[in-house]
Amino acid sequence: MAGNSFGTLFRFTTWGESHGPAIGCVVDGVPPRLPLAEPDIQHWVDRRRPGQSKFTTQRREPDQVKILSGVFEGQTTGAPIALMIENVDQRTRDYGAIKDQFRPGHADFTYQAKYGIRDYRGGGRASARETAMRVAAGAVARRILGEDVTIKGALIQIGDDRINRDDWNWNEVESNPFWCPDASAAERWEALLLEVRKRGSSLGAVIEVVASGVPAGLGDPVYDKLDADLAKAMMSINAAKGVEIGAGFHAAVLSGEDNADEIRIGNDGRPLFLSNNAGGILGGISTGQDLVVRFAVKPTSSILTPRRSIDRFGQEIEVVTKGRHDPCVGIRAVPVGEAMMAVVLADHLLRQRALTGRDKET
Amino acid sequence: MAGNSFGTLFRFTTWGESHGPAIGCVVDGVPPRLPLAEPDIQHWVDRRRPGQSKFTTQRREPDQVKILSGVFEGQTTGAPIALMIENVDQRTRDYGAIKDQFRPGHADFTYQAKYGIRDYRGGGRASARETAMRVAAGAVARRILGEDVTIKGALIQIGDDRINRDDWNWNEVESNPFWCPDASAAERWEALLLEVRKRGSSLGAVIEVVASGVPAGLGDPVYDKLDADLAKAMMSINAAKGVEIGAGFHAAVLSGEDNADEIRIGNDGRPLFLSNNAGGILGGISTGQDLVVRFAVKPTSSILTPRRSIDRFGQEIEVVTKGRHDPCVGIRAVPVGEAMMAVVLADHLLRQRALTGRDKET
Amino acid sequence: MAGNSFGTLFRFTTWGESHGPAIGCVVDGVPPRLPLAEPDIQHWVDRRRPGQSKFTTQRREPDQVKILSGVFEGQTTGAPIALMIENVDQRTRDYGAIKDQFRPGHADFTYQAKYGIRDYRGGGRASARETAMRVAAGAVARRILGEDVTIKGALIQIGDDRINRDDWNWNEVESNPFWCPDASAAERWEALLLEVRKRGSSLGAVIEVVASGVPAGLGDPVYDKLDADLAKAMMSINAAKGVEIGAGFHAAVLSGEDNADEIRIGNDGRPLFLSNNAGGILGGISTGQDLVVRFAVKPTSSILTPRRSIDRFGQEIEVVTKGRHDPCVGIRAVPVGEAMMAVVLADHLLRQRALTGRDKET
Amino acid sequence: MAGNSFGTLFRFTTWGESHGPAIGCVVDGVPPRLPLAEPDIQHWVDRRRPGQSKFTTQRREPDQVKILSGVFEGQTTGAPIALMIENVDQRTRDYGAIKDQFRPGHADFTYQAKYGIRDYRGGGRASARETAMRVAAGAVARRILGEDVTIKGALIQIGDDRINRDDWNWNEVESNPFWCPDASAAERWEALLLEVRKRGSSLGAVIEVVASGVPAGLGDPVYDKLDADLAKAMMSINAAKGVEIGAGFHAAVLSGEDNADEIRIGNDGRPLFLSNNAGGILGGISTGQDLVVRFAVKPTSSILTPRRSIDRFGQEIEVVTKGRHDPCVGIRAVPVGEAMMAVVLADHLLRQRALTGRDKET
Repeated sequence: MAGNSFGTLFRFTTWGESHGPAIGCVVDGVPPRLPLAEPDIQHWVDRRRPGQSKFTTQRREPDQVKILSGVFEGQTTGAPIALMIENVDQRTRDYGAIKDQFRPGHADFTYQAKYGIRDYRGGGRASARETAMRVAAGAVARRILGEDVTIKGALIQIGDDRINRDDWNWNEVESNPFWCPDASAAERWEALLLEVRKRGSSLGAVIEVVASGVPAGLGDPVYDKLDADLAKAMMSINAAKGVEIGAGFHAAVLSGEDNADEIRIGNDGRPLFLSNNAGGILGGISTGQDLVVRFAVKPTSSILTPRRSIDRFGQEIEVVTKGRHDPCVGIRAVPVGEAMMAVVLADHLLRQRALTGRDKET
Repeated sequence: MAGNSFGTLFRFTTWGESHGPAIGCVVDGVPPRLPLAEPDIQHWVDRRRPGQSKFTTQRREPDQVKILSGVFEGQTTGAPIALMIENVDQRTRDYGAIKDQFRPGHADFTYQAKYGIRDYRGGGRASARETAMRVAAGAVARRILGEDVTIKGALIQIGDDRINRDDWNWNEVESNPFWCPDASAAERWEALLLEVRKRGSSLGAVIEVVASGVPAGLGDPVYDKLDADLAKAMMSINAAKGVEIGAGFHAAVLSGEDNADEIRIGNDGRPLFLSNNAGGILGGISTGQDLVVRFAVKPTSSILTPRRSIDRFGQEIEVVTKGRHDPCVGIRAVPVGEAMMAVVLADHLLRQRALTGRDKET
Repeated sequence: MAGNSFGTLFRFTTWGESHGPAIGCVVDGVPPRLPLAEPDIQHWVDRRRPGQSKFTTQRREPDQVKILSGVFEGQTTGAPIALMIENVDQRTRDYGAIKDQFRPGHADFTYQAKYGIRDYRGGGRASARETAMRVAAGAVARRILGEDVTIKGALIQIGDDRINRDDWNWNEVESNPFWCPDASAAERWEALLLEVRKRGSSLGAVIEVVASGVPAGLGDPVYDKLDADLAKAMMSINAAKGVEIGAGFHAAVLSGEDNADEIRIGNDGRPLFLSNNAGGILGGISTGQDLVVRFAVKPTSSILTPRRSIDRFGQEIEVVTKGRHDPCVGIRAVPVGEAMMAVVLADHLLRQRALTGRDKET
Repeated sequence: MAGNSFGTLFRFTTWGESHGPAIGCVVDGVPPRLPLAEPDIQHWVDRRRPGQSKFTTQRREPDQVKILSGVFEGQTTGAPIALMIENVDQRTRDYGAIKDQFRPGHADFTYQAKYGIRDYRGGGRASARETAMRVAAGAVARRILGEDVTIKGALIQIGDDRINRDDWNWNEVESNPFWCPDASAAERWEALLLEVRKRGSSLGAVIEVVASGVPAGLGDPVYDKLDADLAKAMMSINAAKGVEIGAGFHAAVLSGEDNADEIRIGNDGRPLFLSNNAGGILGGISTGQDLVVRFAVKPTSSILTPRRSIDRFGQEIEVVTKGRHDPCVGIRAVPVGEAMMAVVLADHLLRQRALTGRDKET
């Protein structure tokens, strides 16, 4: 109830601080007899790992995931699965300069206001390092979803530079350091971010996550609508400021005629939607179309330009944030967004199974 | 767990269908000894009531709220508060035409896919009529928040016609049928919607909800961040397709320098933020600034222009939706958005009290 | 979170006070397409109804259950089911005498201590009248369990007069006003309770509830063990002071050899337990044997003999409780115990379905 | 939702198997700025540690608790507290003999029926080793309760040998290996258990846990009554078969006059109860008197006498359970019962604070 858990039937709880001995999570509600081993999880965690390109933080963490429980002879047992990553590169250093400062855009001020105490080392609990465990939990969730469901994320905007959607190529996503589906945008971003990094500045971004193969029928009206849970999932990611489904904010501009996704019967005898303004969700329930979610993240708050702020004692100060930071945190948010999609879907798949006794519409 | 409840400590559960005998909710977790009577709730419910202008559905519902429990001698007792509104104008009519049809943009298809059964009368459980109970629950939540917290909503865009934020006037909101804070936009919208209604068409909209006087410290990292819970709350509203906090999607465009809300010490000796790109939330915790949330709703799906669809038997059909509908459902979403803001804040106020033993930072 | 809900996937929330306009509940998580109508629920509620014999309260309540939502054309829809019973015989009278008194054994003192306010009319929220809605929810739960699971309760002890278990006859239970399975005990109890009532006194009792046909595999280690949830369920019934499973407290006396329920293969080729000290539960999970739960209820606290107490102002007083009370509340606790068994099993059946995709071991 | 968590506001989740690399828990909802260090937890865990006397299992585990998160500079931060104990003495051995057998009285059969897979090494998840983490979580809970609340447990019965309550001496509890408050009973038990152990047999027991200094007002009617939550807590302990509060099952025997705990005003001007049949709870809410809970545990199921059973393949077999087992698991259940009392009280203290803004009645 203090907010460190996510999900209802598929439910995970994360723990750990940026500069503590380790971070970890406990995943409860995993069905028994699913094949699972450390490399299955490591595969996804590696995609989020820091220090992989010059555009993400240079903190050197191997991010080696260990399974501590809930798996026996290569299969899940139905018992809770504890996962842990030891922190390796939590540099011991003098925090004297910043331990009492409230860095603008960071959670320093609010953690102090809420708790009256704050682990200031590397952002403590508020560090984006926590998202490594989301990715780990997401890897377990993917096992529940099975091979039929595929989840892919892409970066579609950095600063005010958007991709050209006509040039979308999923293969491209794995071949540049931005998860960018548009090759020429990726080229532009490389120049853009080098320049931004050089200035010690940062930029925001927009991420799109698409899930295919999701059966119709997932999502619980009225308050646990699939889109409502996805909105919460994405907005809970560090630095997220906006979430939209399908046409999203653009839906406000559409007329009823243009917004309606018409339906025909496809060649396979199944319903065929002629467009997807709904983003795969109607009335909070999946339609069987692709689920399309986008979220915006603000620019990294740690920048070299001095900003005015105050300290814990009410003194006015100027803050410059040095350290190993990402010029665009949005990049590493891509695998995190994918993971959050996976955990929401796994949860709702189990919920649907409980309510109706079946995984899919028949 | 089937999705009809919202909140954790302040928790309400709604029930009822559009054309059933009544709709209602049970609000649990209300602190004892708060003054509460039916008019306190009726006041807010009346703002959402249908049939109040030519721009909302002409269904005639008095929407008379009854308190059935949890209040004694004018005060809450700590017991659950049951609220009920009897449905009066649920016209009996022949549903033969639509009972097997899947109206595009509606939840007909997905309810059928999920449950294998569907109360097709007036949208059944998926009807926006359910939101009346959100407003009722929100009225109770406001009692918990007290006089220091004020929550106000406004419509800031219909179709592609946005208000001029420089002309924002909160007083204007109560004097036009659109909750529009910009008098000249309200005038334009009147003409626009008359024309849209005449064509049997509809338009989407964007709503902004602002909460002032919220103490710093509300919100639980990591997964129950205040913004994450607000995103879920707003996205759970019928027809919502996008949610953003503060600068929202525009944050993607900003540089770190421009996005940082600098802090000084105000004349009252308290922290003074020089801007509010954060929308009042940092690290998932309220800063004490205004909370600013926006959400987009799609155009009403019930339109007179025929749309292609299928029926329950897999036959291709054309659908025209007659009936009493809003040309822009976004209008009546304004009081609903305010209510959802109130219930999220009341819940987090109680959570903060549990965790720290205090309502406010000291 | 304020305690008026029970269950996780099958979850109901009750509301209402003894002398308010009505009592009710909302049952969420009911699978769609189960046949359900008011008589299905009324059947069970009638068994608990007051005023049916001279051994229960003479309050005259028809206890007519109405279904207000969640059922369409005779079937559940998956939407929340709202049930309501109007209070009819809540006599208006002068509460002057007792409104400030703390009756010994009642919840008067503790409600005042907790909430600082108390609806003193007929016990308010603390009245056993609330249990009518447990029985109603239990009736819905039975629909989920289906015909294969049967749940039966019996009164096995009043005061220190126990039944003879060798004379147990389930048919007898329906033919005496005590739900007593032993005909000669029922005769003795009739004389006993007439005498107790005459003296304005009261007696405690022990209830046994047995569920047959429960599949093996229900119950979630470690904290939501089936026996742990049953213990909570039974202990939450008004006046309950003890709960035991199978051999219960007697298990403390047994040696490991005597306690072990040995297993053979039965004629049907399935596991056959040779005894049932476990009460049908091992490691918190059902074995497929009969589930056997017993709970003790204290004597009715409302008695004619004066007892020393204090009032709200700290004055020492003497209290005599007049009114329409049961000489042995244990009698009407039998259908309530059955209902709580039903709701726990329905919840765990859905949980098992979610986790494993099947209702039963295969 | 899969059952490995306990509590609502103060909520902990345990993980780990008997013979896995480690066991652990995550405690969420701990208020910030409470002093906490590893020795504070180790102190309590040591009381439950195996191998401390000849009457408990000879497994040699140092049970060294590590705090991995949520504590900074000696104080809690409000972030989740992860605790871990590495398993040291999980002997590698040949499980060939028992891996397919269902030991009577153990959870082997039911785990297989539920999950279709089972970690058979040392009982896997069903091992009492899990209770070490309950004790650890209980140590954190005690910090929340503060010095005013004291929780003490005692063993009051082994087999059919009960203590003499007139000889109850709390000091005695710490000076014999049974947590026995009656010196002469402790002497008898020593002889009794030596003989039982020699025979390879086992006995059940009854534990009593008493909490003093608990403020009036804790517990949430109707379903989360304090006694209901305590019943669940105690029944969730391995081998528990019965729970009672105050007079418990004996309340069934009492008349209303004898059961009523009369109230006077004490010399301190506060309410003074003249007896405690209620066990400190009325209407599910604490009265301010001592909370008194008892629970019965069955005899250890691992015994040397052969018992008839079946194996995973449906073959009839005989089982003898060798290994390092407790002749009376009830002994080590004492600190576990204390811990469960602590976690229930801490949770309800936070819940009461949320609802009323105060910890105690004023």
